[in-house]
Amino acid sequence: MNTATADMQENLTYDELSVGQSAQLERTLGADDIRAFAAVSGDTNPAHLDPEYAADTLFHGVVAHGMWGAALISALLGTKFPGPGTIYLEQHLQFTKPVHIGDTLTVIATVLTKEKSHRRVVLDCQVCNQNGAVVVHGNAVVMAPATKVRRPAIAVPTIHLVDG
Amino acid sequence: MNTATADMQENLTYDELSVGQSAQLERTLGADDIRAFAAVSGDTNPAHLDPEYAADTLFHGVVAHGMWGAALISALLGTKFPGPGTIYLEQHLQFTKPVHIGDTLTVIATVLTKEKSHRRVVLDCQVCNQNGAVVVHGNAVVMAPATKVRRPAIAVPTIHLVDG
Repeated sequence: MNTATADMQENLTYDELSVGQSAQLERTLGADDIRAFAAVSGDTNPAHLDPEYAADTLFHGVVAHGMWGAALISALLGTKFPGPGTIYLEQHLQFTKPVHIGDTLTVIATVLTKEKSHRRVVLDCQVCNQNGAVVVHGNAVVMAPATKVRRPAIAVPTIHLVDG
Repeated sequence: MNTATADMQENLTYDELSVGQSAQLERTLGADDIRAFAAVSGDTNPAHLDPEYAADTLFHGVVAHGMWGAALISALLGTKFPGPGTIYLEQHLQFTKPVHIGDTLTVIATVLTKEKSHRRVVLDCQVCNQNGAVVVHGNAVVMAPATKVRRPAIAVPTIHLVDG
């Protein structure tokens, strides 16, 4: 059982996971999230950063980096399902819809298979927007934690962006 | 031909791409890159953020988020190969080695196949560290740009992190 709270971070061990079990997290895309993701990745494609350019594209306005949605999958797997102690082995990603500023994404991961050798777990990962449309999806493969971890959650720093 | 400079960003259209053609980019992981990635994704797994916890793990010290390496693939595809106008459809990722602070990663993308219908291009993507070890790899599928784009590169903001 995962009894994590906002202040505590707790994992689920391989033995605690069962096929069909799922977990989720939610996050809303802010304009500064896109600019911060561009800065930390170097991905300055104008579809993400230039409203004038982006207005003329297929997506009619700036969109998030596809990998930002993927990073939310990583956040769910890395913080609580299965959480600390998980080794990320593989991720397949299909980018099916654009994500716009203000969209609220829900990431849902569901255990598909477990293999005791190497504690290998395959999870179906779906990222949906507030209208229920899938924006990113694909299977993850992880090595699940062997031992229980329960520890204070780490506060993330606040990002301030200064135009370069 | 891609004649992009540091000040200009230029794409390669579907017609300009050929099977076997490749491009690369390089980036060194700073300690603040990890903290910024944690903030923008919400992935606060202690393997990335807590040196004391991380010292006792398989990887002996804090490591980058796997998705940061993946974001560098996105940066190469989104900024120059093929660059602006590219639609990211799919990415497979295998996380094969940890990335430590100070590691310099080189991302190399190589065109594997082209399909004229939907301008579909499959690229092999390899991310290597300064010792030549592959840290992330997998195929990308994109819709390549139909039209040429050449425009001033967008300066990314500088990230300042304030402890929360």
